[in-house]
Amino acid sequence: MKFFQTRFSLPPLSRGFHLITEKIAAALPDLKEIDKGLCHLLLLHTSASLTLNENADASVRGDFESHFRHMIPENAPYYRHTYEGADDMPAHLKSSVLGSSLLLPVSKGKFVLGTWQGIYLGEHRNRASGRNLCATIFGA
Amino acid sequence: MKFFQTRFSLPPLSRGFHLITEKIAAALPDLKEIDKGLCHLLLLHTSASLTLNENADASVRGDFESHFRHMIPENAPYYRHTYEGADDMPAHLKSSVLGSSLLLPVSKGKFVLGTWQGIYLGEHRNRASGRNLCATIFGA
Amino acid sequence: MKFFQTRFSLPPLSRGFHLITEKIAAALPDLKEIDKGLCHLLLLHTSASLTLNENADASVRGDFESHFRHMIPENAPYYRHTYEGADDMPAHLKSSVLGSSLLLPVSKGKFVLGTWQGIYLGEHRNRASGRNLCATIFGA
Repeated sequence: MKFFQTRFSLPPLSRGFHLITEKIAAALPDLKEIDKGLCHLLLLHTSASLTLNENADASVRGDFESHFRHMIPENAPYYRHTYEGADDMPAHLKSSVLGSSLLLPVSKGKFVLGTWQGIYLGEHRNRASGRNLCATIFGA
Repeated sequence: MKFFQTRFSLPPLSRGFHLITEKIAAALPDLKEIDKGLCHLLLLHTSASLTLNENADASVRGDFESHFRHMIPENAPYYRHTYEGADDMPAHLKSSVLGSSLLLPVSKGKFVLGTWQGIYLGEHRNRASGRNLCATIFGA
Repeated sequence: MKFFQTRFSLPPLSRGFHLITEKIAAALPDLKEIDKGLCHLLLLHTSASLTLNENADASVRGDFESHFRHMIPENAPYYRHTYEGADDMPAHLKSSVLGSSLLLPVSKGKFVLGTWQGIYLGEHRNRASGRNLCATIFGA
């Protein structure tokens, strides 16, 4: 049984949804040590998210941003937590609706994903610094 | 420490939410090898979902379908990814809002679930083929 | 490789979102045995939720309750599962949108979380008993 735990950062990304599958794999050389296992990713922030979705057509990522702006709007009359900007409270809500972690199977050193699946980072702030993650990789 | 990883398929299901706890357990004979552990399930698709919810009254599953049709509608004016049908972009969004994986405790060869909890598969396309999953089971 | 699995309960909480990071850590003395690992938490219920979000300002938790009352309303005309009260079907939906489990990295006996991250329990019923959880902790 092998067990690796490491922290790493992604550079600042613009508001919206970004396909980061390759960036994550490149940041985790320990994946190659695993023949059969799992990789857990936790975003150490409360205004961004990680989710799996369609990896081929960028219009899907655009529609994610449009839909979440609609479903979790800025300036809702019932928000009380407003002093960090109009994008802040919606960012917190989006982070919890989409989730800030993923657990992915690993086989022969690579993520097991469906043909059309990729890892999205949802950046929900208008201006964000880089985002920090904790990865935990284990298996045989 | 035991570690099993396997892929399996579920037959095509109609659009809506389906209780699949028994089907999943039957597809995973390795569960019986685990006295104390965890089972990870990943749906290898981006237009269906896995979630835990009420296992007793089918009206809950019906209301899930009704609510998600309302909260994530077809033909929203802001969708740009429309060429795969009116049900496609909502299916992607539902998959990320509900999630496409579950991690469940295993004890004495069986899933640990609350009395009223069962595994739902949300089929979000009008017509879908069978769905493929990757299961990773580990523990003592 | 160490592997612990245990059940525990949280006392009844009022409807809304509650910061329970310290309560969870206190209920799990086995965390201290783990130098590098993971902790899985599963709420054994279908009308409450677990999520990570902002740990500093209670107004965020208040806005969570307000937003989810709006996004997943009571008495929607399409609900059929109504005999357990107006808060019941929305509670089921919230449980699946937010999720009822978390997987958290553990390092040197403590949860690895971002500076501003804490564990929220979302209690979605107007009146609930205590909530039962299953924790699975493993690692080196």
